[in-house]
Amino acid sequence: MPPFDVPSDGFLVDHVTLRDWTRDVICRTGTEADIADDVADVLVAADLRGITSHGTGRLSMYVSLVEAGITDAHQRPERIGGTPALGLWDAHNGWGPHAGRVVMDDVIVKATTLGIAAAVIRHANHYGIAGWYAIRAADRGLIGMTMTNGTPLVAPTRGRTKLLGTNPIAFAAPAGRYGRLVLDMATSSVTWGRLLVDARRGRDLADGVGMDVDGRVTTSPAAVLADGALIPLGGSEATAGYKGYGLALMVDALTGVLAAASSGPFVEPFSLVGGPSNLGQMFLAIDPDALDPGGYEQRLETLLDALVEAPTAPDAPGPVLYPGQPEAEREIEQREHGIVLDAGHHELLVRLGERIGLPLPTLVPVRAQVGGPAT
Amino acid sequence: MPPFDVPSDGFLVDHVTLRDWTRDVICRTGTEADIADDVADVLVAADLRGITSHGTGRLSMYVSLVEAGITDAHQRPERIGGTPALGLWDAHNGWGPHAGRVVMDDVIVKATTLGIAAAVIRHANHYGIAGWYAIRAADRGLIGMTMTNGTPLVAPTRGRTKLLGTNPIAFAAPAGRYGRLVLDMATSSVTWGRLLVDARRGRDLADGVGMDVDGRVTTSPAAVLADGALIPLGGSEATAGYKGYGLALMVDALTGVLAAASSGPFVEPFSLVGGPSNLGQMFLAIDPDALDPGGYEQRLETLLDALVEAPTAPDAPGPVLYPGQPEAEREIEQREHGIVLDAGHHELLVRLGERIGLPLPTLVPVRAQVGGPAT
Repeated sequence: MPPFDVPSDGFLVDHVTLRDWTRDVICRTGTEADIADDVADVLVAADLRGITSHGTGRLSMYVSLVEAGITDAHQRPERIGGTPALGLWDAHNGWGPHAGRVVMDDVIVKATTLGIAAAVIRHANHYGIAGWYAIRAADRGLIGMTMTNGTPLVAPTRGRTKLLGTNPIAFAAPAGRYGRLVLDMATSSVTWGRLLVDARRGRDLADGVGMDVDGRVTTSPAAVLADGALIPLGGSEATAGYKGYGLALMVDALTGVLAAASSGPFVEPFSLVGGPSNLGQMFLAIDPDALDPGGYEQRLETLLDALVEAPTAPDAPGPVLYPGQPEAEREIEQREHGIVLDAGHHELLVRLGERIGLPLPTLVPVRAQVGGPAT
Repeated sequence: MPPFDVPSDGFLVDHVTLRDWTRDVICRTGTEADIADDVADVLVAADLRGITSHGTGRLSMYVSLVEAGITDAHQRPERIGGTPALGLWDAHNGWGPHAGRVVMDDVIVKATTLGIAAAVIRHANHYGIAGWYAIRAADRGLIGMTMTNGTPLVAPTRGRTKLLGTNPIAFAAPAGRYGRLVLDMATSSVTWGRLLVDARRGRDLADGVGMDVDGRVTTSPAAVLADGALIPLGGSEATAGYKGYGLALMVDALTGVLAAASSGPFVEPFSLVGGPSNLGQMFLAIDPDALDPGGYEQRLETLLDALVEAPTAPDAPGPVLYPGQPEAEREIEQREHGIVLDAGHHELLVRLGERIGLPLPTLVPVRAQVGGPAT
C-alpha cells in the first residue's frame, strides 16, 4: 500500500513527457506503436502512483530483454481455448503489459454479459504493477482481479531457498466518491523491487521480511540480495507467515499451474542470462450490476466511511486509510506537479537514452521535500 | 495452517459417534434431518482436522442461537437472481453450513459446464470452517474457493476498534498423490476461536497479533477478549499488516457488499443478545479440465514435490509443509484413533446433552500425548 517516499533530491518530470519518451524508446526496439503504448502506460502509471520499484526504473531491463531476444517484441496474445467464461490464452512470449491489457479487456467484456469471467495466460512476461489491470475493470464499474507468478525470490515457511515468486494479488472495486478500492500486494512482506530501491537509498528492512543465504532473518537489503530470500507475508511461523506462503502458492495454483505455464522454482528468473520466464497470469472480472444494478458502489462507500473515520491507535502515524488511498493521492499530486525521479532512477534513464540514441529530455533537479507519507 | 495441539489430558471420541450425537442434538432444535446432517458434517470435520476452535465446541452456541430465535432452523437457501455463472442467493437466516453446502454444490455443477462459476449469498449465518466448502470442489476435481465476512473483531491498520471480521479466504485444489492443496486462513493473524482456546488452555499470544482496549499490542488473550481487537495478518504497518487489512476488506467487498448483506462494523455480532448476523458469503469453482483435461493435478504435484523436499532454515521445527498437510494428517490419524476433546470442550458437550435431554455418550479419559505438531 505505501508508495515510496518522494525523494528529497531528484529530478522532476511531467508524466506526459515521461510517457511519450518511454513509448518512443520501446518503439526503437522494433515494437509496434500500439503495443508500446500499453507498456508505457503501465510503467508510467507505476511511477505516478509512487510504486517506484515497478515503473520506468525497469525500462532499461525490459529493453535489454528484447535486445537479447529473451522477450519477443513482435508477438501478440492469442486465445487458444477454454470456454466463454474461462479463457485460455498464449502470450507467445510478447510484451507482458500488452498481453495483460488485451486479456483483461476481453475478460471485462465477457463479465459484462455473463456476470463473471476469467482467463489465464501462459508464456507471459512480467506485466508491471498488477493493480493496473484490476483498476481497468473498476473504472468500468466492475470488480477486477489479477494474479501473476514470477521469478523465484521467496522461501516457503521453514525453507531457506527461493522457491516462489512474490506472486501478487491485485483487486479493485468501484467505490463511488472514494474512486476505487485498490489492493495491489505481493504475498511476501516486501517486493524484490522495494528491496532494490531500499538498497539504492541505503535503508534497512523491517525485521522478519528477509533472510540471508543461510536462512537467518536479516534487516540488510544487501544480505537478502546476496542469494538470500524474501519471507512470506506474516513473517515467522509464530506470527502466521505460513498464510503468506499459502497465498503465494494459491497464486501459483491459479496462474502457472492452471495455465500450464511455469510455476514456483521452475520459473526462469527475470534476467538476461536465461530464457523466457513463461509466466502464468490470471485475470477475473465480476459485474456487480448483474446482481443488483447500481447498489454496489453505495454500499462500499458506506463501509469505507466507517473505516476512514475510525479511532486510531496511540502509535498510529495518521488516520486509517483505505487500500489504494496513498497511491491515488500520489497520482493526483504527481499528475499535477510532475513525477520526482530519484538520482539513480534518473541516471538509468539518461544512460538508456544515450545508448539507444533517444536522449531523455533535460529535467529540472529538485531538492525540496514534496511530501508523501513516511514509510 | 497448524491444527491445535492434541490435548494431553482429555476425552477420546470416535468421529462417527460424535457426528451422530451432534446431528441428533441439532434435530432436537426442530431442524430437519438433512439440514442437521450438513451442520454435523461441517462441525465434526473441523474437529477431525484439529481446528478445535471451529468444531463441536461451538455446538452449544449454535443451538442457543436457534433456541433464542436468532437463527431460523427451518429456512432453506433460495436462488433469487444473478446469471448462470454468477448466482445471487438468500439464506433466509437458516443454518449456515446447510446453505453453504447447497450453494457450493450448485456452483460446482455450473462450473463443470461453464468452466467457472460463482455465487454470493445474503442473510447467511456462520458456516464453520470455510475450507470444508472449498474441499468439496477439490474432491470433484475442481478448484474451489469461498470467503465469508463475520463478527467485527479486527482493527484496521492504524485503528484500535473492531471494524472487520476475521474474514477468511479458503482455497482448495486437487493435487494428485498429495490429495489436496488446502489453504483455509483468517485474514487476521489468529482467529477469535483460537484466542478462546488459547485463553482456555492458558497460552500467551505471539507478539503482534492482538491489541488491548487502548490499541496497544498485547500477548494476553484475556486483554484482547476484554474489548481489545485482533490485528490483521502481517502485524504492524512496518511489516505490511496493511496487506492483511486489505485482504479482509477485499473479502467484505466480495461477500457482504456484493451480496447486499451486512459488512464490516455493520455485521451484528455472533451472540445471543443481538439479531441475525446477515453475513455475506462467496463461493467459486473453476474446472481445470475446461482448459487442459487431466493435466492440472500432475503439474500441481510437481510443484508440491519441489516444496516439501526443500532445504530448511536453521530454526525450522521440521520439514517444509504444503498448505493443508497438517490438517490432512490429523484427520487421517483421528479418523482411525478417535478425536481427543480437551476437558473444557468435553464439559461443554456434556452440559449441552444434559440440558436438552440427549446425554453425550460416556467417553474414555486419555492422558497420553497422541502427537501432533507443537505450535
